[in-house]
Amino acid sequence: MRDSLDDQLDALDADLVAMTTAVRFSLARASAALLEGDIEAGELVISGDTVIDAARESCEADAFSLLATQQPVASDLRRVVAGIRIAGDLERIGDLAVHVAKLARMRAPEPAVPETARVMVAQMASVAEGMLESVAIVLGTHDLDAAVALLTQDDELDGLYRSTFRRLLSDQWPHGVETAVDIALLARYYERTGDHAVSIARRIVYQVTGEVPLG
Amino acid sequence: MRDSLDDQLDALDADLVAMTTAVRFSLARASAALLEGDIEAGELVISGDTVIDAARESCEADAFSLLATQQPVASDLRRVVAGIRIAGDLERIGDLAVHVAKLARMRAPEPAVPETARVMVAQMASVAEGMLESVAIVLGTHDLDAAVALLTQDDELDGLYRSTFRRLLSDQWPHGVETAVDIALLARYYERTGDHAVSIARRIVYQVTGEVPLG
Repeated sequence: MRDSLDDQLDALDADLVAMTTAVRFSLARASAALLEGDIEAGELVISGDTVIDAARESCEADAFSLLATQQPVASDLRRVVAGIRIAGDLERIGDLAVHVAKLARMRAPEPAVPETARVMVAQMASVAEGMLESVAIVLGTHDLDAAVALLTQDDELDGLYRSTFRRLLSDQWPHGVETAVDIALLARYYERTGDHAVSIARRIVYQVTGEVPLG
Repeated sequence: MRDSLDDQLDALDADLVAMTTAVRFSLARASAALLEGDIEAGELVISGDTVIDAARESCEADAFSLLATQQPVASDLRRVVAGIRIAGDLERIGDLAVHVAKLARMRAPEPAVPETARVMVAQMASVAEGMLESVAIVLGTHDLDAAVALLTQDDELDGLYRSTFRRLLSDQWPHGVETAVDIALLARYYERTGDHAVSIARRIVYQVTGEVPLG
């Protein structure tokens, strides 16, 4: 039964959902390393990235063999091509989690994020992680409402990104250049995570409706 | 004749080379806006990004129709799937050029890059642009030596990236937080451009040799 086109397509979707969960855990661990000084969690993120890379290769290989053996057309073909791109977005989110974990490690045992900026960064981390939960739902259910809700989450993340930069660049910024550069990069990593999540949601909407969605 | 598989594959490659050239011009213009205060060049980058986005969509549509109508297998299939991913990398380089141009615009009429950091940023811009020239050669010729040479260019770019951060974070940094954050982000945009160029080269090597290349 595993050989039918539908089964193979479902298996590809299931692999993408599993990969999303792995990437979400990775980002959560990286944020714990950053914000709670959980060094072990950070090391797991860095060493575990090869597993995420392998998952991406495996999704791509499955899609590839599906294209070669089943020669899907129309919406099935769209689904396979979307799967290849989505696996690429997820791998990239995994890389961003590694960046967060490495920044935490570079500053340890000092916290990379000073107390005054902690809430701001924690909010970005939390919204980004929530977006990955939504991505798993969108991938698993193809629920268009959940895909649209992701856009609202991304607006929130962009708002946090902008207010982080306003804080960094204000005259009241109480820390030095190094901390400012660290926080700017961290803000960018979380914001890029959100962009990749939105990109995945758009692909699912396109796959389901055939229309490029959401402005 | 345009309907044969080989012709369609060649047309896809030609579109990718053209897209690479467009992206290279875009990055060169963004760097001119940044380093020479060429405001008009910067505006062209920002307004012209829709053309690059459209080129990506067109490459993807061509690949898609090729998959649906020709049902390629083996190395031909690999080439089409690589084309889809490469168009995605090129679009992203276009986005990075827009980030550079917007940063230049945000600080205008003041230069975003102060005189003391100018050479450093100009070197990164120049290496990144050179990498895009190499990408066009690799895409057009499938020359493996050119693909490997891209790795050397990327090492140079990574070295410049690291030394930029050392400068920013040293006690001798003569500028404030805002300039440090700007330069850190700019360094990252150029470094990411290099990563995407390497990613394209790897895909071409994989496509030609069937092996994942280059460490």
